[in-house]
Amino acid sequence: MENFTMHNPTSLHFGRNVTDDLGKTIAQYGKKILLVYGKGSIKKNGIYDQVMEQLKQIGVEVFEYSGIKPNPITEDVDAAAEIGKKHNVDVVLAVGGGSVIDSAKIIALTIPCEHSAWRIMINLAKPEKAIPLVSVLTLAATGTEMNPFAVLQNVQTHKKIGYGNPLIYPKHSFLDPAFTFSVSREYTAYGIVDLIAHALENYFGKGDASLSDRFVFAIVREAMDYGPALLDDLQDYDLRARIMYAATSALNGLTAYGRVSGDWGVHDLGHILSLLFDSPHGATLSVVYPAWLKLMKDRTPERISELGKAVFNVNGADRTILALEGFFKSLGSPVRMEGLGIPQNKKKEIIDMMVQNKVNGAHHKIEKEDIETVVGLMFAKAQTE
Amino acid sequence: MENFTMHNPTSLHFGRNVTDDLGKTIAQYGKKILLVYGKGSIKKNGIYDQVMEQLKQIGVEVFEYSGIKPNPITEDVDAAAEIGKKHNVDVVLAVGGGSVIDSAKIIALTIPCEHSAWRIMINLAKPEKAIPLVSVLTLAATGTEMNPFAVLQNVQTHKKIGYGNPLIYPKHSFLDPAFTFSVSREYTAYGIVDLIAHALENYFGKGDASLSDRFVFAIVREAMDYGPALLDDLQDYDLRARIMYAATSALNGLTAYGRVSGDWGVHDLGHILSLLFDSPHGATLSVVYPAWLKLMKDRTPERISELGKAVFNVNGADRTILALEGFFKSLGSPVRMEGLGIPQNKKKEIIDMMVQNKVNGAHHKIEKEDIETVVGLMFAKAQTE
Repeated sequence: MENFTMHNPTSLHFGRNVTDDLGKTIAQYGKKILLVYGKGSIKKNGIYDQVMEQLKQIGVEVFEYSGIKPNPITEDVDAAAEIGKKHNVDVVLAVGGGSVIDSAKIIALTIPCEHSAWRIMINLAKPEKAIPLVSVLTLAATGTEMNPFAVLQNVQTHKKIGYGNPLIYPKHSFLDPAFTFSVSREYTAYGIVDLIAHALENYFGKGDASLSDRFVFAIVREAMDYGPALLDDLQDYDLRARIMYAATSALNGLTAYGRVSGDWGVHDLGHILSLLFDSPHGATLSVVYPAWLKLMKDRTPERISELGKAVFNVNGADRTILALEGFFKSLGSPVRMEGLGIPQNKKKEIIDMMVQNKVNGAHHKIEKEDIETVVGLMFAKAQTE
Repeated sequence: MENFTMHNPTSLHFGRNVTDDLGKTIAQYGKKILLVYGKGSIKKNGIYDQVMEQLKQIGVEVFEYSGIKPNPITEDVDAAAEIGKKHNVDVVLAVGGGSVIDSAKIIALTIPCEHSAWRIMINLAKPEKAIPLVSVLTLAATGTEMNPFAVLQNVQTHKKIGYGNPLIYPKHSFLDPAFTFSVSREYTAYGIVDLIAHALENYFGKGDASLSDRFVFAIVREAMDYGPALLDDLQDYDLRARIMYAATSALNGLTAYGRVSGDWGVHDLGHILSLLFDSPHGATLSVVYPAWLKLMKDRTPERISELGKAVFNVNGADRTILALEGFFKSLGSPVRMEGLGIPQNKKKEIIDMMVQNKVNGAHHKIEKEDIETVVGLMFAKAQTE
């Protein structure tokens, strides 16, 4: 077990009507709010009105930046930060899923400094402060609501990267499972894939942390036991709640304590597909994970088998990989490039972009020939059972 | 799933040599330190010297209060708080196990107010502040290092009660598994029982929180897989680390989120045995838990069976209870009053004290006749397998 520090500064407010306290919470940070959201679904499902009612009650000035893309880009972050600077806002309020909250994290870092978002993310600038960030989560998936990470892409340089900084933990995150009722069956499934992938990225990381492994198994089993039921009844509060809490737990530190690092090779590979084809993040992961496991099955067979025994009750790496792939398929999430709508003739472009982006993984290293293998596996014909 | 807020303000520093940062950490809180510890084992095992070296490096003034008892009493808390008041200390540093840290929590609350420790604990006084508390843990058991709870007894009123207040979370807790090397086999076993009991008190609480249940199973299995090995090799750093992290996880919130409450009936019953006979806390729990489960097996059979399936791979409530009792026995922790050295002729006194202390449990209510039953079961002849 490696040394670790356990301290998560985010206050997570979970449950029915928790945003009834949103105004009161925001008020302690100031009078000028930068509200950040996506392409307007929150206006259709009523969440925007609920949030504005809370802000009205505390009499604050609200500036808005909307239009954050599902695969968020730094151009939006810089534009939003400009508004924040111009009006000297006191707090950023993000209302949305991972893309909105990740963007808001970098907005909160960019506002009080003289650098662009991208310069910060590639560590050319080292911000020493961030303005306070409060989030209202509308999608159970990324875990960003309780961690210090953000993933953004740069359209100009064709890169999509992750960034971490303790300054960007949200001060408060509000998670009302009912706020995810309007998420489609498809995106609900991608969220389930995403949370499982987060737990597994830590599981396949470096270091021997048995209790964190057990927490991984707990989270994956929770997603497997309640995910399919949720897809059959998207308006079930209780199922929404279980998946939402599992998603937070998958990436708030719990699955990582005592390890040297996670792996994140699968995410690195998946990001390239989103970058090139604007594929939904979760959908890329259900394609990449089985392929990555096939690549790794001779390198870390015991570890894969241990996962299979614990969460699928199957023996051996091959059966584990089949079981995971089968579960993703059962959710309706793609497990091959074809399901993402990516044609065979893009293979070289994908491989080149992965090489150019230096996709390599933190623990199980991925070399150039591995990239060719893993992309080949993603294009392979799916096994039928 | 019930609404909950997840926010634990303690910074937990876990691993080898983490106390190398103790001085630096303490320094940010002030110049006058009240050092609280127990009956001097930290002087024998060298921890006292290590801590004093850290304090010397930062040039602070140290006032000491030692002699905290294994079953801590409010008289010590009041006496220590007097020293703190007299010297106007800035921070309380607790070095020890649960008894020392629990005492230090109430000391930190008592110093800045005009009330006695007991008045605070029975809620006749409502302190509005506490001075900062830093802890160095030397026993893996109670989880106090990362929660807002303390249990103390009052010798005069013959009561032993728990108390909770967000003001008493330690600011920082330092957990070096090597600091538990000198804990005896016996007390190491009691610590393992204690951590399992904490997870189970939450499991048998009110409310349906499936992921928290899974975390309970994870923690109990971790203790079962590594506890016996640790008892065979008390100097194994890695085994000490696994048990230490499991003990923190059992009662830092993780096993409780999404529930209405825990149960704590077993702890209530056990506290009476410590009060009357000065029995070690963990040792009382290995006697009480099997008896309590036998009392509850017709009231909540599915819940007990679910636990048995998940952690012992057995079917049914009876087998689950036998398996838990068998595991406690295998650790060398007592499972009947005889093992605690409590004779049959104390039965009435015990029952009377339990009734007088209003032992009742938060979820599964314990009536007077239940107390008679459960005490009878604790005195019963142990089953042999």
